[in-house]
Amino acid sequence: MAPRQLNPSERLDWLRLIRTENVGPVTFYQLLHRFGSAGAALEALPSLANRGGRQARLAVFPRVTAERELADLDKAGATILAWGEPDYPAALAAIDDAPPILAVRGDRALLSRPALAVVGARNASANGRRLARELAGELGHHGYLIASGLARGIDAAAHLGALASGTVAVLAGGIDIVYPPENQELYDAIVECGTIIAEPAFGTVPQARHFPRRNRIISGLSLGILVVEAAARSGSLITARFALDQGREVFAVPGSPLDPRCRGTNDLIRRGATLTESIDDILQQLPTLSPSVAHRRPTPAELPASLGSAGAETPAQTVGEPRDSARAQITERLGPTPVAVDELVRQCHLSPAMVVTILLELELAGRLERHPGNQVSLL
Amino acid sequence: MAPRQLNPSERLDWLRLIRTENVGPVTFYQLLHRFGSAGAALEALPSLANRGGRQARLAVFPRVTAERELADLDKAGATILAWGEPDYPAALAAIDDAPPILAVRGDRALLSRPALAVVGARNASANGRRLARELAGELGHHGYLIASGLARGIDAAAHLGALASGTVAVLAGGIDIVYPPENQELYDAIVECGTIIAEPAFGTVPQARHFPRRNRIISGLSLGILVVEAAARSGSLITARFALDQGREVFAVPGSPLDPRCRGTNDLIRRGATLTESIDDILQQLPTLSPSVAHRRPTPAELPASLGSAGAETPAQTVGEPRDSARAQITERLGPTPVAVDELVRQCHLSPAMVVTILLELELAGRLERHPGNQVSLL
Repeated sequence: MAPRQLNPSERLDWLRLIRTENVGPVTFYQLLHRFGSAGAALEALPSLANRGGRQARLAVFPRVTAERELADLDKAGATILAWGEPDYPAALAAIDDAPPILAVRGDRALLSRPALAVVGARNASANGRRLARELAGELGHHGYLIASGLARGIDAAAHLGALASGTVAVLAGGIDIVYPPENQELYDAIVECGTIIAEPAFGTVPQARHFPRRNRIISGLSLGILVVEAAARSGSLITARFALDQGREVFAVPGSPLDPRCRGTNDLIRRGATLTESIDDILQQLPTLSPSVAHRRPTPAELPASLGSAGAETPAQTVGEPRDSARAQITERLGPTPVAVDELVRQCHLSPAMVVTILLELELAGRLERHPGNQVSLL
Repeated sequence: MAPRQLNPSERLDWLRLIRTENVGPVTFYQLLHRFGSAGAALEALPSLANRGGRQARLAVFPRVTAERELADLDKAGATILAWGEPDYPAALAAIDDAPPILAVRGDRALLSRPALAVVGARNASANGRRLARELAGELGHHGYLIASGLARGIDAAAHLGALASGTVAVLAGGIDIVYPPENQELYDAIVECGTIIAEPAFGTVPQARHFPRRNRIISGLSLGILVVEAAARSGSLITARFALDQGREVFAVPGSPLDPRCRGTNDLIRRGATLTESIDDILQQLPTLSPSVAHRRPTPAELPASLGSAGAETPAQTVGEPRDSARAQITERLGPTPVAVDELVRQCHLSPAMVVTILLELELAGRLERHPGNQVSLL
């Protein structure tokens, strides 16, 4: 699909669809696929949710609220970047749950550069900060956009090191919420000469659940992720986990077993991450990455080539409305333990499109949860 | 072969043979193989050397000098341990160039325990020393004999940590030469409750060339080797190289890229050594090692089952004296660049035994050098 800009009305529909209750990115693309446009999906949502077992009517995200968000973004100097638009990062577009809509401040053209993430501990050591700053600066010098999360410690050091060459901060909350507040100056500097992006709605104050969602974007837009200092069971390891799931390379700086801030990075190395002392360790791995990720603009499995444009394929619409027996087959096989969608298809002798449709209805009804690896569970 | 003790006359012959000019361990075992006993080999040496192109008569190591060495060892409280004797470490016996003769002080029974080497930088950091001491102590607690080289820094810390559980120091010089002198107290303590072993003759002051020879013994007697801090191009990396050649596992403690004492260990990890933060990292690997190394008493390829005993096979004797044409075939294919013995056999269309015999003669004549991986070059 050639990248193209959404028109203002499409953009509003996309925003309303992704902001609607129970609609996550995966569902978003499935709805687009099934109905051909976000507008058509919005109209069909309430009846889909009812078929999935919802009692009360599903409230579609109000047009006026979406218009207010667009106005707020505009006033804050931010713009909207939609999946498939020219500046949308190619690597990020390739992940299953790529954000359909991102808010952007700063230089959005930077986002088409190949990116590397540099992340790590908030309570980083002086040596860790120095390494993050130096490595980010040198990687920037080699043409890589440095992605991180604007957190204290390693993140801040990485942004600082790459300020001159190009850096993108991915926020956990709304594009206008600087967290932690002490990084306001850094935020301003990145707006000036880098890029800030955020998936949640304008004004969203980040909460615990937002951080893993944010981390998937940091790894998703990067060819690889470098972890500089990370304790066991820390957020940086979640980012590394996403990177592996997304097929990205993981790099880690080793450290003394006596320093708990190195437990996580040492463990990553033990599990196969590339031990990294200098950028040579990273650059050596990149040729193997670039053909598969950097030089193509891939399409999420569920997203049709006809995205949003009229008259193209309408494949899933031929599925029709599922019969109650098919719905029962699926729901009786679901429980609180995640199960692979492929396994459901195999066991139910239904077409994949039919299974997808039934799961979509359940999700819109608020009865289904999606998990990494195309797995689902019943709530 | 069931382990058996040499008798005093055999022991003297073994000592004379291995102390004779141009006779290294590999040659030693080949001579035993060819002549059935060290005594017979001693008699044949001069004519073998002449056939290899030596002008002056090869001086076999004098009986009286060997007797004096045995007396000196006895006076110093040391004993001789020969390859294949009951206490000779099984893992060490398995390497191609296992020392035919070792001098031993302290408790030689410790040598039949499964051993792990702990080695590293002489200018170790306080943290490195602490880790070496703690890890050695914990491994000792799990029944492993801790081998090291009595050097400053990591080696000394490892010996100290395992003093109570069992440790063996492998010296680079003679068994009576404490190097560095500052480790005299540690040496005495190890004599008291551990084991000291040395390959060179009594009274030998260690020189640069002795250290790699010593390092092959440290790795050779161990199931695996743990490197705690090592600079790039340091002696510990040579020991690790030997360990890999000998099929032993290599463990390394990671460290900050900003500390040059961690360059070597980080590089080992990058090349496949097991990243080690605690003994769990080591213990997890050992089940895979023990079947292949620990629980068998292997025979070097060149050493016959009839070692030193009369009436058994006499395979190589049937080779007879090589013809000059065969000798010329070999020598014209040799040069200063090491070549594999197998390759010589293939190219010359001679029997392996004939090639081995010709190389043996050349070596005794002082014209041949042996290299790791069964390679040889002409001097």
